[in-house]
Amino acid sequence: MTRRRKIIVIGGSAAGPKAAAKARRINNSAEIIILQKDADLSMASCGYPYYVGGCFNDRNMLLCTGTGVTRNPMFYINAKNIEAKVNTEVTQIDRTKRTVAFRNIISGETGTMNYDKLIIATGSVPRMPSVPGVELEGITTLQSMKDADFLRNIRDAGKIKKAVVVGGGLIGIETCEALQLAGIEITVIELLPQLLTFLDWELAKLVENHVKSKGANVITDNGIAAFLGEKGKLTAVKLQNGTELPCELAVVAIGVMPNIKLAQEAGLKIGTLVGLDVNEYMQTSDPDIYAVGDCVETINRITGKKVLAPYGDLANLQGRVAGENAASENCVTFPGTIQTGICKVFDYVAGSTGLSETAAKKVGFSNIITVINASPDKPGFMGGKLLVTKLIADKKTGRVLGAQCIGPGNVSKQIAQWAMAIQGKLTIDDIINADLPYAPPFSLAIDHFITTAHIMQNKMKGRLKGITSMEVWQKVLEHEKPFLLDTRSPEEFEEMRLGIGEILIPLGALRKRFQELPEDKNREIICYCKISLRGYEAALALEGNGWTNVKVMEGGIMAWPYAREK
Amino acid sequence: MTRRRKIIVIGGSAAGPKAAAKARRINNSAEIIILQKDADLSMASCGYPYYVGGCFNDRNMLLCTGTGVTRNPMFYINAKNIEAKVNTEVTQIDRTKRTVAFRNIISGETGTMNYDKLIIATGSVPRMPSVPGVELEGITTLQSMKDADFLRNIRDAGKIKKAVVVGGGLIGIETCEALQLAGIEITVIELLPQLLTFLDWELAKLVENHVKSKGANVITDNGIAAFLGEKGKLTAVKLQNGTELPCELAVVAIGVMPNIKLAQEAGLKIGTLVGLDVNEYMQTSDPDIYAVGDCVETINRITGKKVLAPYGDLANLQGRVAGENAASENCVTFPGTIQTGICKVFDYVAGSTGLSETAAKKVGFSNIITVINASPDKPGFMGGKLLVTKLIADKKTGRVLGAQCIGPGNVSKQIAQWAMAIQGKLTIDDIINADLPYAPPFSLAIDHFITTAHIMQNKMKGRLKGITSMEVWQKVLEHEKPFLLDTRSPEEFEEMRLGIGEILIPLGALRKRFQELPEDKNREIICYCKISLRGYEAALALEGNGWTNVKVMEGGIMAWPYAREK
Repeated sequence: MTRRRKIIVIGGSAAGPKAAAKARRINNSAEIIILQKDADLSMASCGYPYYVGGCFNDRNMLLCTGTGVTRNPMFYINAKNIEAKVNTEVTQIDRTKRTVAFRNIISGETGTMNYDKLIIATGSVPRMPSVPGVELEGITTLQSMKDADFLRNIRDAGKIKKAVVVGGGLIGIETCEALQLAGIEITVIELLPQLLTFLDWELAKLVENHVKSKGANVITDNGIAAFLGEKGKLTAVKLQNGTELPCELAVVAIGVMPNIKLAQEAGLKIGTLVGLDVNEYMQTSDPDIYAVGDCVETINRITGKKVLAPYGDLANLQGRVAGENAASENCVTFPGTIQTGICKVFDYVAGSTGLSETAAKKVGFSNIITVINASPDKPGFMGGKLLVTKLIADKKTGRVLGAQCIGPGNVSKQIAQWAMAIQGKLTIDDIINADLPYAPPFSLAIDHFITTAHIMQNKMKGRLKGITSMEVWQKVLEHEKPFLLDTRSPEEFEEMRLGIGEILIPLGALRKRFQELPEDKNREIICYCKISLRGYEAALALEGNGWTNVKVMEGGIMAWPYAREK
Repeated sequence: MTRRRKIIVIGGSAAGPKAAAKARRINNSAEIIILQKDADLSMASCGYPYYVGGCFNDRNMLLCTGTGVTRNPMFYINAKNIEAKVNTEVTQIDRTKRTVAFRNIISGETGTMNYDKLIIATGSVPRMPSVPGVELEGITTLQSMKDADFLRNIRDAGKIKKAVVVGGGLIGIETCEALQLAGIEITVIELLPQLLTFLDWELAKLVENHVKSKGANVITDNGIAAFLGEKGKLTAVKLQNGTELPCELAVVAIGVMPNIKLAQEAGLKIGTLVGLDVNEYMQTSDPDIYAVGDCVETINRITGKKVLAPYGDLANLQGRVAGENAASENCVTFPGTIQTGICKVFDYVAGSTGLSETAAKKVGFSNIITVINASPDKPGFMGGKLLVTKLIADKKTGRVLGAQCIGPGNVSKQIAQWAMAIQGKLTIDDIINADLPYAPPFSLAIDHFITTAHIMQNKMKGRLKGITSMEVWQKVLEHEKPFLLDTRSPEEFEEMRLGIGEILIPLGALRKRFQELPEDKNREIICYCKISLRGYEAALALEGNGWTNVKVMEGGIMAWPYAREK
């Protein structure tokens, strides 16, 4: 009888347990052991902000299966025949001897254990700003169950009045919402000029406006200079521009770094982004060692370049791949990521898949075309809500490179559709006649996703000459004075308007009021309406009547990120 | 100067106005005229059931733009420079003279009008059963604005107590819900053995169970024999098996037929399905005549065969294609349909895209493989709701042929994902590592869609030996006595169970209780749990310990369509 294969998994959060479970399903006879530093196993860490925010109250829901069984060592041994040792930190990997040394962090007990295959799932460590005061009481991250407990207690105690969230990324925004819901006055500070860098600036600005409308403060373009305190306790956050924000709590969410200490000490190859280097089998430079989750570098499927993509869904998928390969032989591969992400932001959702315009340009795509579509997710009579989508495509081939979507509408479905389009390598032409599930409770007859492709097609064919809100604002600031034509109704104009020197001529009256338009048929005219559909029709009518330089402001007023007159 | 092109559109509901609007955007100088038989234009006819059901009360919302402007002739002329003649029935198309004859159905006025390009968008007519009594007062369809008004008045009057819906398709189910919500006792009768034929039987049965749980009656496998009445008024519906159902209202929803009368009289080619035959440009057998919407036959993109697909979204997309071709020259094409459909059913949603198992077999796919996945759309702590998906793939290539999904969860997103996968010609291997938008408010870390592909992959690789609920039930009926193993907890078993002779051994205790399993290692063992994930793990453990004939009942109890013991 052959000896049982021994598979050791270091890390028991997301990728590790998934790898172990998959290994068990593939290999019934293997000995499978999870070594987990924390007290808990298989925590739903992406759920922490919702626990902190009071979306649910039973902490155990973060730790249990769908039928309410806690995923503790007893569960793992009984249900999966996997030995899980918690509170057990691995202190060394000896690749020559194929052993790991470990230490129980409660009892101090140490030991070593041999392996045939090792799976490293050590996750990530939160980045901390290197500023004075970082050790003060009242500063935390939201990375561990302990952090979640700490913040949830703060919520329940209801004593803290002011908090600062350092970092305006996914976790920062989710934490902001959670604490704001707890009645704490929040300020989010972000070093970069925008929140949520998976979005381009103009969409991020719309999200920022929404966050502010919910009562939270947002400060961008301004990093943290110091944490200030008294008697060891945080009292304020000092910004790089000198501003001091009094607060009793600061949550640092400026990103995470792959936790590669063990792997590095064991001499495994580390990539240029300082994550573990793995091949398509999730195998490290040592063929007996696999690595998965936040600690690895992953291929971006669009650019072919390595990226850090610390997302829970990828961790699980990678775990499944490594688990199977470790339990049999290299037979399944992980294709990489298109960096799909999504984030609830109060009543908005913000999501992205593929490349943003900024990201595409950064990696060298030069011939790209973008478009913005603002329109509802469902008919008005079914309570449709606004979506603002920005689509990025290759100008020559029409291949979809990326899409971002924000708004109170069903963003998740939109992003899922774009993600599948990108993974199917679809072009705009493939999407314009897509057959999607239509009924009024779920979408418009032509879904927002398809309409976005239609607008892109019109732009690619030169029919729609788009101009971005940013370009229009630049013209206003530089007193270029294009002829700005708002094509909505007087009632709409009275209720809400940009106030940047625009003239109101409702679309329905336009053909009778051409004489109010510039005599100079070559003068630049910029048309828009609420979402710029009427704006587009106006532009076509003007072009059909001789004006030669007519543009449509993409997304209309709904995608205007700047302050409005009303 | 060249003469203005004259484009006439017959039909003003969905496809017609879209064709006209697109033609205008492509050709600013053309003369564009819509001839519409009804009084209204561009009605959101898919919204009728929701108006009838009281989902909204403002009738005008079915007829107005997103900003509240009614799409009447005034709107069309002012905003789009399109002449729309309502109450105007086209009585003849003279292809030789290139004219249409029309008649105002209010004034009786007649006339003829020449065209350069004609677009036929005459829609469909509801099928009516050829049974006695069909002329009785109290029998209606839900096809027109007039029908919607009639049923809405019935709802508001609150006098009618009992109604029968004849036909259990999309419109039948939507109507059932609308009237049920109005407090009317409803019976849906369906000639076929199931509701919603875009689903396979076992999923349709789960929907039927849900409809019944909402208090509506459902009678399948039983058609209508006669409408019975007194003094010209409906008093009952008589079924083919002799049952009489007393009722004051009957809504007939047994499908629609392409309205091809005009086209047929004009000698245009009609297809074998008795819809207008069109090419990829939406062009009829007469090059100057296009046709769009419910009146045409469309290509099924998976089978390459013509189908009738009377859906509002396709009508709009086809209208857009025909509008552009008619306004310029044949330059854009419509690729066909994958017959994606969706339907709200009280608290459930039922959707389908591509081929059902039944449909796939009917068109000759012989080497197919199917799988059922029952699991939630989101984590339990975020209020996740059940989804039951049936996936159909080509067994050899793994290409996705179709997917159906039902349940209280986010079915619409699931179906959209499958629809994009089918349109991208993706295989199961392409989907197992899909990168989709994950955050707890929106999905599980591994989305239900991906999990479905995982289960399919396990089945294709022979790891999961699936058995359907129907096969299990057949064995029970035939007293075959397989060893039925329920792997849930005693608490779950106490709360809900099939009661078909199963033995309860919780997964966590299984490895210690192997002695309770059949001594004969070749005996058929069928494992399941709530959703059959634990059932699968149990099956693997049994196989790992020598049992050779172990199956997993797909979808577990959640996908069991028959009555349960409790």
